[in-house]
Amino acid sequence: MRKLLIVLMAFPFSVMAQTKYEGSLSDSAFIKMISDNILVSRSSYDNLYNLTKKVGGRLAGSPQMVMAEQWGKKAMETAGADKVIMQECMVPHWVRGGKDKAAIMYNAAGKKQTYQLNTLALGNSLGTGAKGVEAQIIRVNNFDELEQKKDQLKGKIVFYNVPFEETFVQTFRAYGKNVIYRAIGASRAAKYGAAAVLVRSMTHAMDNNPHTGSLRYNDSFPKIPAAAIGLKDVAKLDSLLDNNIAVTAQLFTYGKQLPDTIGHSVIGELTGSQFPNEIITVGGHLDSWDVNEGATDDGAGVVQTIEILRAFKALGYQPKHTIRFVLFANEENGTRGGNKYAEDAKANNLKMIFALESDAGGFTPRGFGFTANDTVWNKIYAWKNLFEPYGSDKFTRGGDGTDIEPLNETFNTPVAGLSPDTQRYFDVHHAASDVFEAVNIRELKLGAVSMAALLYLVDKYGL
Amino acid sequence: MRKLLIVLMAFPFSVMAQTKYEGSLSDSAFIKMISDNILVSRSSYDNLYNLTKKVGGRLAGSPQMVMAEQWGKKAMETAGADKVIMQECMVPHWVRGGKDKAAIMYNAAGKKQTYQLNTLALGNSLGTGAKGVEAQIIRVNNFDELEQKKDQLKGKIVFYNVPFEETFVQTFRAYGKNVIYRAIGASRAAKYGAAAVLVRSMTHAMDNNPHTGSLRYNDSFPKIPAAAIGLKDVAKLDSLLDNNIAVTAQLFTYGKQLPDTIGHSVIGELTGSQFPNEIITVGGHLDSWDVNEGATDDGAGVVQTIEILRAFKALGYQPKHTIRFVLFANEENGTRGGNKYAEDAKANNLKMIFALESDAGGFTPRGFGFTANDTVWNKIYAWKNLFEPYGSDKFTRGGDGTDIEPLNETFNTPVAGLSPDTQRYFDVHHAASDVFEAVNIRELKLGAVSMAALLYLVDKYGL
Repeated sequence: MRKLLIVLMAFPFSVMAQTKYEGSLSDSAFIKMISDNILVSRSSYDNLYNLTKKVGGRLAGSPQMVMAEQWGKKAMETAGADKVIMQECMVPHWVRGGKDKAAIMYNAAGKKQTYQLNTLALGNSLGTGAKGVEAQIIRVNNFDELEQKKDQLKGKIVFYNVPFEETFVQTFRAYGKNVIYRAIGASRAAKYGAAAVLVRSMTHAMDNNPHTGSLRYNDSFPKIPAAAIGLKDVAKLDSLLDNNIAVTAQLFTYGKQLPDTIGHSVIGELTGSQFPNEIITVGGHLDSWDVNEGATDDGAGVVQTIEILRAFKALGYQPKHTIRFVLFANEENGTRGGNKYAEDAKANNLKMIFALESDAGGFTPRGFGFTANDTVWNKIYAWKNLFEPYGSDKFTRGGDGTDIEPLNETFNTPVAGLSPDTQRYFDVHHAASDVFEAVNIRELKLGAVSMAALLYLVDKYGL
Repeated sequence: MRKLLIVLMAFPFSVMAQTKYEGSLSDSAFIKMISDNILVSRSSYDNLYNLTKKVGGRLAGSPQMVMAEQWGKKAMETAGADKVIMQECMVPHWVRGGKDKAAIMYNAAGKKQTYQLNTLALGNSLGTGAKGVEAQIIRVNNFDELEQKKDQLKGKIVFYNVPFEETFVQTFRAYGKNVIYRAIGASRAAKYGAAAVLVRSMTHAMDNNPHTGSLRYNDSFPKIPAAAIGLKDVAKLDSLLDNNIAVTAQLFTYGKQLPDTIGHSVIGELTGSQFPNEIITVGGHLDSWDVNEGATDDGAGVVQTIEILRAFKALGYQPKHTIRFVLFANEENGTRGGNKYAEDAKANNLKMIFALESDAGGFTPRGFGFTANDTVWNKIYAWKNLFEPYGSDKFTRGGDGTDIEPLNETFNTPVAGLSPDTQRYFDVHHAASDVFEAVNIRELKLGAVSMAALLYLVDKYGL
């Protein structure tokens, strides 16, 4: 394209001359000020660089978790928080314990072949240890098939080969359909004596990265090893099994569940001028998996949260309600940060009026999903047109964030999740490819813009 | 994010059991069939791979242009065109002629320093030749400043340093504001005796890639050399000039305008069952700049066009009107393919009822922009909700495509352009970074889905 072809979507009519908030501004004018401020700032991107490249993967309990907490505290202070609270909570402490390894062996062309798999143990899984597990692979496409084959599973390695649905436009639907196999597939197979499970990665990606994520063991059954494999290895395995070639797999994983340890959610606060005990919460989660930089999941939400604080301070916006900017301690293999946050609010008799989380990636925002009663929903829905210039005016019912669900459960607080474009999320989710470079600076900033606009409206008009 | 947090945007309720079009299907049901078909097919992505990696950059007049035409013909046949027309037109034949080179020289720390710039001659520009141009740099931020400094420009190299506006949410607005400096900046400076111009690249990218694109010389003034430089080099240059350090630049470019040559637009046709002489056009442009793979600009539009043909054939959809799937010959430095296409339609007395182009990248579609009268617009706007499940329901007025504008001008044909997300487009536009790897398979396919849906509705209901 060489010239201006597209007549553009709606945009605000004037560029603001103001650089500070004045009560007399229209909502659209102040939101434009927020947008201008964030879009010309590099601070969210620089913060993401530092978090991902200097701290890196930061699973609960790891030394990087501690570094991330300190980084977050400093970033909140730099952004201008009135105070920063390090809210202690006990977090799970799972360690990978070593380099995961897997291979398959089969007979072809008259001799024994060996093919290395690219694998990652699932979070919370217990390892095979140095002696490994070696057994025949039994492939199942779903739990029904597992049940049908239950008499063949003893001592075998079950391969859950559940395709990641391509026809769903919204990729989270595909994840929602398949995540159960990662979550409870090990125990379901262990019930019938399986020795280990391999799980097809939940991704559309064209690469071979395995995608990890947590499982939950059922204490009634043996806690067998479990690992994810990438799609090219799945294709290899399928091509063998489709040709009725018996395949043996060898798996080495070293996962260990250590005693819970101390972690912290980092809470930056702007104290409300009129209602200091009425709290608006915005956040992302500070933890990530150990095998990547956690840029999309959830470095993006973390730096967007800090960016909103920075922009509000830079614009001189003094909220009426207290706004808490929260980097939750532990989302990936527990909700300890979010649970503690709600418990603490209850113990201190705080009024939690609204909570917003960004945990679906730093992609161009399309809107928000809300969990709220009809009255609140109708009030919020009336603001929708203010988001049109920013392309984030898809307001849908349902939606929140793992870390703020406890607020909804405890206080019936209306909660919302930012809804960015979903197409690329599962390319990198829980895989080594979740790195800084896969986040676009403008998409990241636009998420912060829309979140800030929503918080501003909630603060101004209440819910 | 570890679990299903977002309640998803609207989606069709049932997965279709049908695999072929039946007249009795509802519109939403048939559009879902199209979507399912395209989302599970790899053919658009494989086509993009072949076009970008095997043909590569394919500027009008180049040997790659000829290869691309042959590739396009074969791809149309494979996709199932009733016939393929190679529509001849004369195309411009500009060649880069050699490796562009530039450096700046200045005194600092008591000695002469030299710093190499990453540069690309602008398309259509005439080269400095082997002897190069060496002259002091005069920086201007806009044409007003050029006029103010007009007495200082003789023999100098003018550096157009027009920042790419970051506060515009829609990036095409920033391009629309700045492209004039690339297009006519050389002649404007030549009017006052400048020896050459350097143009700040029109991009938000964080890298140092220069972004080329075409200029138009004004025949009244000398045709001086012109080149783009990347943003890191701009920052270097700014840091020197801001400190009042005199900077000399040395520029070597080798551009030549050769006589026009023969090119072809590739037209695949599905012949209409009821109105064979009433034509619906859909297309992208086959040419690209020489310095990249032309994946986003406009390999995406090319393979989406072919994909729609493939899907219609695969679904057994027989259009009432003739649908022409067009790979236009020459968009980047001329509109020769599009002009010839309209002229030919006029000469053959065809009725051109609608045209659609994809030339804004293979990013997640957000909607369409339409140039049409009120009656047609109202009719189209009534279809908007059918696009909501696909996230492409932002229907705006204004918008077309360079190659289909001549249809609008000649016949008053209603025309439309696909409007994908714009945030990443100018990261790669006309730069070496416009490669296959920067296109996401699902985003690419979703563009084809929405385009196919629109064509289906136009064919079914007319305009």
